[in-house]
Amino acid sequence: MSNESNIRTVITGTGSYIPPHNKTNKSFETQHFYTETHERIVSTGVDIVNKFEQITGIRERRYANADIDTSGMAALAGLSAIHHAGIDPETIDQVIVAHNFADIAQYTIQSDAVPSLASRVKHHIGIKNPSCIAYDILFGCPGWLQGIIQADLFIRAGAAKRCLVIGAEKLSSVIDAYDRDSMIFSDGAGAVIIEAKTGSDSNAGCLGSKACTFSTEELNYINMGISNLPGADPSHRYLKMQGRKVYEFALKHVPEAIRDCMDSCGINIAEIKKIFIHQANEKMDGAIIKALYKLYNADVNVADIMPMNIHLLGNSSVATLPTLYDMVCRHNLHGHELKTGDIIVFASVGAGMNINAMCYRC
Amino acid sequence: MSNESNIRTVITGTGSYIPPHNKTNKSFETQHFYTETHERIVSTGVDIVNKFEQITGIRERRYANADIDTSGMAALAGLSAIHHAGIDPETIDQVIVAHNFADIAQYTIQSDAVPSLASRVKHHIGIKNPSCIAYDILFGCPGWLQGIIQADLFIRAGAAKRCLVIGAEKLSSVIDAYDRDSMIFSDGAGAVIIEAKTGSDSNAGCLGSKACTFSTEELNYINMGISNLPGADPSHRYLKMQGRKVYEFALKHVPEAIRDCMDSCGINIAEIKKIFIHQANEKMDGAIIKALYKLYNADVNVADIMPMNIHLLGNSSVATLPTLYDMVCRHNLHGHELKTGDIIVFASVGAGMNINAMCYRC
Repeated sequence: MSNESNIRTVITGTGSYIPPHNKTNKSFETQHFYTETHERIVSTGVDIVNKFEQITGIRERRYANADIDTSGMAALAGLSAIHHAGIDPETIDQVIVAHNFADIAQYTIQSDAVPSLASRVKHHIGIKNPSCIAYDILFGCPGWLQGIIQADLFIRAGAAKRCLVIGAEKLSSVIDAYDRDSMIFSDGAGAVIIEAKTGSDSNAGCLGSKACTFSTEELNYINMGISNLPGADPSHRYLKMQGRKVYEFALKHVPEAIRDCMDSCGINIAEIKKIFIHQANEKMDGAIIKALYKLYNADVNVADIMPMNIHLLGNSSVATLPTLYDMVCRHNLHGHELKTGDIIVFASVGAGMNINAMCYRC
Repeated sequence: MSNESNIRTVITGTGSYIPPHNKTNKSFETQHFYTETHERIVSTGVDIVNKFEQITGIRERRYANADIDTSGMAALAGLSAIHHAGIDPETIDQVIVAHNFADIAQYTIQSDAVPSLASRVKHHIGIKNPSCIAYDILFGCPGWLQGIIQADLFIRAGAAKRCLVIGAEKLSSVIDAYDRDSMIFSDGAGAVIIEAKTGSDSNAGCLGSKACTFSTEELNYINMGISNLPGADPSHRYLKMQGRKVYEFALKHVPEAIRDCMDSCGINIAEIKKIFIHQANEKMDGAIIKALYKLYNADVNVADIMPMNIHLLGNSSVATLPTLYDMVCRHNLHGHELKTGDIIVFASVGAGMNINAMCYRC
């Protein structure tokens, strides 16, 4: 849907928390991997890691320390965005936290979302105003962008003027070390302040969005399952992904969703300066961008249009988009800069299976 | 905030799933209970249960069978609401599921929200339309009502015309059998269809709402903690409540929130026909209603204004409000009927600590 209200919703601050522990591909070379049918993968560690890097583009990923949980990372990213926006936290109307696994205490496997992570973040940040409501949204990897879409709607409906929207995940708590896919995932948090603007000094803001849920045969392309290790405890479940199916699904549906979003905003592909896409897998993300431009019979220099940080940060689920956007806004991603007036796209795909996209004018 | 848009959002169907297993207070008389400091409570089982019943009003509660999880209950409640509304499920724009513990497989303690429960519900119901987006909201016990508040905003913002909003919880999976508070909690699911109406045939619909999050010293009044049983595994955590603090908190803040909601709608206390309040505890709920009327120096017959089903169904968290409303709408709660034009209030309080209220004209 496109934004036809007089109120524009504008991102006024960004922040992220990038965990300190840098886990390289090399560190996986001695790991024993098994298939989903529990057969030992006999390739050498070096071969497995090289193939992994070719497909995903990931060379390193970040793991959070044991003394910080998802809500702790979320709060640090949120504080950074608040400082960047230069606002008083007591003026925030909503704290929206996207995640999928809540907090998981060290040495345990229980997800803990009581109280909600948003309440914990509000507490950590020290916001006292009771009218600042705090809630969590669960929407797979696209959860942070869906939080932005919701915040935009709330602001345009007059229910909020200023929202803190955070995506945070500690995937190192839910990965199966015996599954090669575990190398994809990482920890992190990203956040933005998004707020109402009514003045005529600029025309920046959210232009429109599109979201979809495919839950027929796609429902369990990403879900929780037992370890690939033979004889592993079946009551302990891990994040599992049918990589090939996710790839085909994304390639088929994400370009269409982005086009639908652009159509609803009256934006042509030639106007797009950057596409911030969920850092799922470099090969897949690149293929999505090429397929999108093919829908318009347009050429594209993928490296120019698509900022990527997956090489160093891996896939941190809901945290990838706000972290990537924060890096570009703060001039921390070489070769990618945004100027006032630039039209950009945010897009994501993940468990649900959910897809969403938003057009935004800087 | 009050609803000043031309679009009215109206509840057009209700449904619930009430689990079959009827667990009576008597069945707890042989249970050993401990305090939070792990001391055995030496009162007789009969005395413990009688005192419990005097305070909470709960005589029985429902537990779901092992073969149905939270999303399964949610889907059945959702289907019931769809049938009641007489709509084609493919016309639903959003499936919103409120919960706090996701699905927990039998014999395990891991919460599983990947894919989201809303995606699972959409799958169970068989909705194919990809533009029907499915997401979960976590907002403590007030989550279902917050989902309604969000659906109302989305509808008024033009982002949806018809939403299915479900509250579902299987608290029997997360209670500590050695804690007397475990007797409060139960399982269940409730749902409504809420949709846009623009015709002038009636003035029914959502009139306005109020929501708050108190997360300073209140943050952990309801949270997850270890069992009261001495020597219990500290890595296995259960739903815990500081009952006295929750009681005092609710009595202080819920009446004010309801009044603020009514004020924003321009509704006077004398116009209210029924108050549907989260079925937390009969004594607390009654005290909240009395305190509300005291704010207006008005008299109240609590039993007439406040429908209750806690005696037979216990406290099923997010499910209590939609289940209670469904029972009244379907003439299944003796002494409580709604007529066209009646103004009612929904109100809830719970983990977060969150409070919300909504005024609605039938």
